[in-house]
Amino acid sequence: MKRLSTADAAFEAAFRSLLDEARDTTARVDAAVAGIIQAIQAGGDAALLDLTRRFDRWSPADAAALRVTEAEIDTATAAIPADQRDALAAAARRIEAFHAAQLPRDITLDDGAGIVTGMRWGAIDAVGLYVPGGKAAYPSSVLMNALPARVAGVGRIAMCVPTPDGVLNPLVLAAARLAGVSEVWRIGGAQAVAAMAWGTASIAPVDRIVGPGNAYVAEAKRQAFGKVGIDSIAGPSEVVVLADGTNNADHVALDLLAQAEHDEAAQSILITDDAAFADRVVAAVDKALETLPRAAIAGASWRAHGAVIVVESWNQAVDLTNRLAPEHLQIMVEAPRALFARIRHAGAAFLGRHCPEALGDYVAGPNHVLPTGRTARFASGLSVFDFIKRTTWVEATEAGIAAIGPAAVVLAQAEGLDAHGLSVAARLRLNGPARLRLNGPTA
Amino acid sequence: MKRLSTADAAFEAAFRSLLDEARDTTARVDAAVAGIIQAIQAGGDAALLDLTRRFDRWSPADAAALRVTEAEIDTATAAIPADQRDALAAAARRIEAFHAAQLPRDITLDDGAGIVTGMRWGAIDAVGLYVPGGKAAYPSSVLMNALPARVAGVGRIAMCVPTPDGVLNPLVLAAARLAGVSEVWRIGGAQAVAAMAWGTASIAPVDRIVGPGNAYVAEAKRQAFGKVGIDSIAGPSEVVVLADGTNNADHVALDLLAQAEHDEAAQSILITDDAAFADRVVAAVDKALETLPRAAIAGASWRAHGAVIVVESWNQAVDLTNRLAPEHLQIMVEAPRALFARIRHAGAAFLGRHCPEALGDYVAGPNHVLPTGRTARFASGLSVFDFIKRTTWVEATEAGIAAIGPAAVVLAQAEGLDAHGLSVAARLRLNGPARLRLNGPTA
Repeated sequence: MKRLSTADAAFEAAFRSLLDEARDTTARVDAAVAGIIQAIQAGGDAALLDLTRRFDRWSPADAAALRVTEAEIDTATAAIPADQRDALAAAARRIEAFHAAQLPRDITLDDGAGIVTGMRWGAIDAVGLYVPGGKAAYPSSVLMNALPARVAGVGRIAMCVPTPDGVLNPLVLAAARLAGVSEVWRIGGAQAVAAMAWGTASIAPVDRIVGPGNAYVAEAKRQAFGKVGIDSIAGPSEVVVLADGTNNADHVALDLLAQAEHDEAAQSILITDDAAFADRVVAAVDKALETLPRAAIAGASWRAHGAVIVVESWNQAVDLTNRLAPEHLQIMVEAPRALFARIRHAGAAFLGRHCPEALGDYVAGPNHVLPTGRTARFASGLSVFDFIKRTTWVEATEAGIAAIGPAAVVLAQAEGLDAHGLSVAARLRLNGPARLRLNGPTA
Repeated sequence: MKRLSTADAAFEAAFRSLLDEARDTTARVDAAVAGIIQAIQAGGDAALLDLTRRFDRWSPADAAALRVTEAEIDTATAAIPADQRDALAAAARRIEAFHAAQLPRDITLDDGAGIVTGMRWGAIDAVGLYVPGGKAAYPSSVLMNALPARVAGVGRIAMCVPTPDGVLNPLVLAAARLAGVSEVWRIGGAQAVAAMAWGTASIAPVDRIVGPGNAYVAEAKRQAFGKVGIDSIAGPSEVVVLADGTNNADHVALDLLAQAEHDEAAQSILITDDAAFADRVVAAVDKALETLPRAAIAGASWRAHGAVIVVESWNQAVDLTNRLAPEHLQIMVEAPRALFARIRHAGAAFLGRHCPEALGDYVAGPNHVLPTGRTARFASGLSVFDFIKRTTWVEATEAGIAAIGPAAVVLAQAEGLDAHGLSVAARLRLNGPARLRLNGPTA
């Protein structure tokens, strides 16, 4: 854990090295993934069966056995404890309501002179959702990835989740049903991404693939990009907590550790104007690590990437936060909205002393798939916008093209695109042939 | 040019081969580009000067000479003909108005029980715009790329345009000024993209890079992705024209050729329900090619990739168009809006007999940077959405976390993320220690 103070002469250099810290240690698996994709393209279902037997340690009898049946989902849903079923349903309701509010309006502009323009939103036809298997199979991720697609109006949501040793995760299946997933396939890795992107006899291809995964899954999405749309490739998670000295140090310590327990490469940063409070939080982190079940991971993350920054003013805190552009930002001061108004770059913000980031991971409503590694400077979290696209349109009457067509002809001629100019000019009634003359590039 | 008819038994196979036709012949330049990026990262301005001398055939004295001065832009702007200046200004006004109408609203949802959630849009700080040099230096592209950024509220727009043999393009500079570009650099290729992404002593790094370019530029954008945001990598252009037999065949022929003249890899497709009209259009294309200045390019495109499809019904035409998901779509029938309502996938549509696609390339208002190669299934044209991003937020009172916190604790425990659960539970006043017990993964 690094301890920084803006009052130190060496602060700027230390902060820069924090900014430049490379935490993403993803292995290069380009060639292996390219091989798997080629195998699926060439071998279809047979290759999928072969790779599933090899990597997931169970033996599907045939391609039909790769699809999870409705009966299996019934059984799984019935088996989970009532409090978990209720919690999932409550989360789904809030996530759905928030994403429904995101749906944008179409626009139409009539210039009153014969040209009407517009922009129309429409849903993607088919989406593939990758869900990691084993330990990292999170039902909350199923809700966060599938519900925005359903709210957007996507007709078909195909989900792939590996089942190592053949074991299904009941909560993941229950979440899939709750979120309106159309089909669940028990396949994983690069082969699952390839099957969704290029299709097999059993699995129809999709138009966009979303969802987290290991290095193989991330690389397969990269290689499928262009054939299908993909979401961003997430790096390790991170949080910045802005907290004044009146906060409960134990709460702040748990907030920092909640991020750190994700992954040894995760990063938790406290920014405070109170050095004594910083000491109390550091002590509380150490104490909590004594009993935390995931202390090995959380401790490693905190020691390697954690940071506590003491500032002389909240202006400094705002400036540093904007430079960090964190995935998650907690603002625990007296008037959090005023500080938040000055934050330009953050994936998601959590305002007040009663708003730990974990609320947003599960039940608050906004998405928990967020831009990492300072990409909040230009990127956004997952939303309904990931599952809709725009078609713009122009409608012209004879009067309309007469009004704006001549300018198009001039520009087409200036750019040396003669057929462009002619396609407009042929529809105009011009005075004499002069305007129809083709001048070639930039006369 | 291929002639297809849905009445033929072999139609489906022929149409599928049209869909699968690979038109993108981009050379693999990965290694060369990686070398250029490393040179800029290591050598900064000196490497930029060296590469510019080598590739652009002129010798900047120093890094300061790489920036186009305000005086040079004054001179260029004063030198262009009045009709071109007026046409550019008219185009800019309409493009700006259309993109201003795209700006979305922030949202706020109050659940009335202590949780307020919201989504706030904000502009990217700094954007880099690549503009190709030489023949393909299109002022219209400068307007289409820079104006949405300006409308979005981007503070700094840095533009790079190579000046082969040192020659500046006056119209491109005039368009840059009109569009509110902040700085113009006379550099190009992968080195320009690298300089914008990683920065040099002279050029501050940007957060997102947009704009068309050759294979080197496209590959440099791919390699910079993650460090900065990028727009989509455009493939060859394409148009589908839906036209009934009452249209003017010469107009339709020019519309098809306007697309074909871009590039030998471009594709123009006519879909009509009138075989005799199809014949008239084919004859009109051949006739127009006799005099068209860019006949060599347009003719090659038409012969290799052009297609005329005769359908038995407009239902078939709609279905084929949705499968093609074209970049540009002209709908030249009696009631174009009714047909357009059934189109699910197209980058931009042009409705009516008086609305050639070229109107949209220059002056109608919507953007001319559009998804190619069937990616309109999941992608959209350039817009203000490319230059803004979202921050979601949650604000919780004590009552709020008391209401939704328990569900978060249950889900965190089910996922085995104990610190997540504790960070919420510590803020709740729970009845007894039972709910605070850590159960580990899926108890």
